[in-house]
Amino acid sequence: MVGTFAFERLFQHGGDINSAEAAFPEAPRPWIDLSTGLNPVPYPVPALDAARWARLPAPAEIEALQAAAGARYGATAPRVVVAAGAQAIIQWLPRLFPASRVAILGPTYSGHESAWRAAGTRILRAPEPGAAVVVVNPNNPDGRRLPLRRLRELARAASLLVVDEAFADFEAETLCADSPPATIVLRSFGKAYGLAGVRLGFAVAEPEIAGVLREALGAWPVSGPALEIGRRALADATWLAAARARLEADARWLDDLLVAAGFALVGGTLLFRLARRADARAAFVTLCAQGVLTRPFRAEPEWLRFGLPRPGDRARVEAALRGLQAAV
Amino acid sequence: MVGTFAFERLFQHGGDINSAEAAFPEAPRPWIDLSTGLNPVPYPVPALDAARWARLPAPAEIEALQAAAGARYGATAPRVVVAAGAQAIIQWLPRLFPASRVAILGPTYSGHESAWRAAGTRILRAPEPGAAVVVVNPNNPDGRRLPLRRLRELARAASLLVVDEAFADFEAETLCADSPPATIVLRSFGKAYGLAGVRLGFAVAEPEIAGVLREALGAWPVSGPALEIGRRALADATWLAAARARLEADARWLDDLLVAAGFALVGGTLLFRLARRADARAAFVTLCAQGVLTRPFRAEPEWLRFGLPRPGDRARVEAALRGLQAAV
Repeated sequence: MVGTFAFERLFQHGGDINSAEAAFPEAPRPWIDLSTGLNPVPYPVPALDAARWARLPAPAEIEALQAAAGARYGATAPRVVVAAGAQAIIQWLPRLFPASRVAILGPTYSGHESAWRAAGTRILRAPEPGAAVVVVNPNNPDGRRLPLRRLRELARAASLLVVDEAFADFEAETLCADSPPATIVLRSFGKAYGLAGVRLGFAVAEPEIAGVLREALGAWPVSGPALEIGRRALADATWLAAARARLEADARWLDDLLVAAGFALVGGTLLFRLARRADARAAFVTLCAQGVLTRPFRAEPEWLRFGLPRPGDRARVEAALRGLQAAV
Repeated sequence: MVGTFAFERLFQHGGDINSAEAAFPEAPRPWIDLSTGLNPVPYPVPALDAARWARLPAPAEIEALQAAAGARYGATAPRVVVAAGAQAIIQWLPRLFPASRVAILGPTYSGHESAWRAAGTRILRAPEPGAAVVVVNPNNPDGRRLPLRRLRELARAASLLVVDEAFADFEAETLCADSPPATIVLRSFGKAYGLAGVRLGFAVAEPEIAGVLREALGAWPVSGPALEIGRRALADATWLAAARARLEADARWLDDLLVAAGFALVGGTLLFRLARRADARAAFVTLCAQGVLTRPFRAEPEWLRFGLPRPGDRARVEAALRGLQAAV
């Protein structure tokens, strides 16, 4: 029974290695976690002064991080809101900007629908005039991209437009630099920088909306270490360029393996690849049995999403995928 | 102008050393921060595995921290909610448990009133039947303590009772072990453990209320390091007993100095002392000029709150207070 419950949890969110271990107790360890869209080579966490843990984050430190994020994303500091992960903002949006209807352009990350549903908002599958709209861009899990022009059209007809740019760090376009009125752009720190455990994310919006979000999140929205790590990482353009080059090479390597293993490529970003195969659910289980956790989707049984492995895990991933190929 | 704005900020929250530096640019550095109620000798942060920063916190890790907090506070794990600081919960309460009126038993920590006011709730100074009630116990800044019997009476007449036990770690009584229905007890990690920068706090409530809070806070409410640091610290009874003994001695030392400097003791806890003096505002400025930041209160010009200094800062604090004495 424990195993069944743990197995079901693997369809909810990526990254739940404990449940994978419980569901597949005989799989070789350590597990290789390809179930998330995190950069597998994290930004190196700097040595932290002990005072970072001890004292309350000061307003000036939060403002410094707003400025660093603004410089990175192309927005002015007053438009940037600091939060303990983009999820913390997603949780607040339906309460701060209530709507009777919200169109969530799916299939996409389930956290948006959960938050709006908890607030009693009716969920639509396509935009309707006057309803709020949520777009993940590029989309998770299929990598669908809407051009800025289309996003501006959506903003004009919507009561509120939420554009979740959680996976936009390596994209050519962002709405942050010039977001329309009544638009909230979300940015995630943990994914591109491979530091999801830091819990750091941002909203970019016109100053009035930004002020409402800041008031809701309170005076100390993130930890002292998150302020320091975020400020340094976001200013480090050299590291980001090197990360992009490595991820491009890794994504090509993974795509080739997936095709060789009988998958069709659906789409993706540099942080994850979505692949289709008629027996994807069986492939998920086969990979789990080898200690490789990927991301299945309850509503799309032919899909599997693959994050990129750490360099040291490539050989095991390659062997597991070649094993699948043989099973075709 | 910058100096005036910075000076005003010192009345909003403790811990804002940047504003103190801006308001008193000629004060000797480093500043000694007595403006908060934090243990000045923090729990030692353990060496952290790099994976704590990199991966998403897993559900089982959050459940382990719930259990550790429950064991420490005397509550079962299903009644414990994990958050990035008690403030994160305070921000949510008026939205999740809306009330037309809330009685906040003041003067007390201003964060409660700000949050309820932002949600449009009418603020009362004394309980009324059917209104929500907020009590900080022991109270900040005056150390007022309500007995459990009185809290149970309040709970019976209130639509919701919030008991903020942010400073209760060294108290004989807590409501956590047996909280009445429709009661939410808040606990802070950062104060007693001297780790406010970690951002960790808890709610203790009946399981149904706890579930509502957990859903609002989302799947990853705190950082990976906070999960590890909190779990270890909360299980370390030896450290907490030693901290109590040291704080008791330090509080006696500070009380003696305050009385010698012409203050009357109003009350406090082992983490802060409230003192009264007719010219407390002038004393605040005099102490700032020596790089010692205390906590003034806009509405109570005769009050100053003193946190306890780090051992290495005792001599400077003693000299600054003896200087005040001479000025009487």
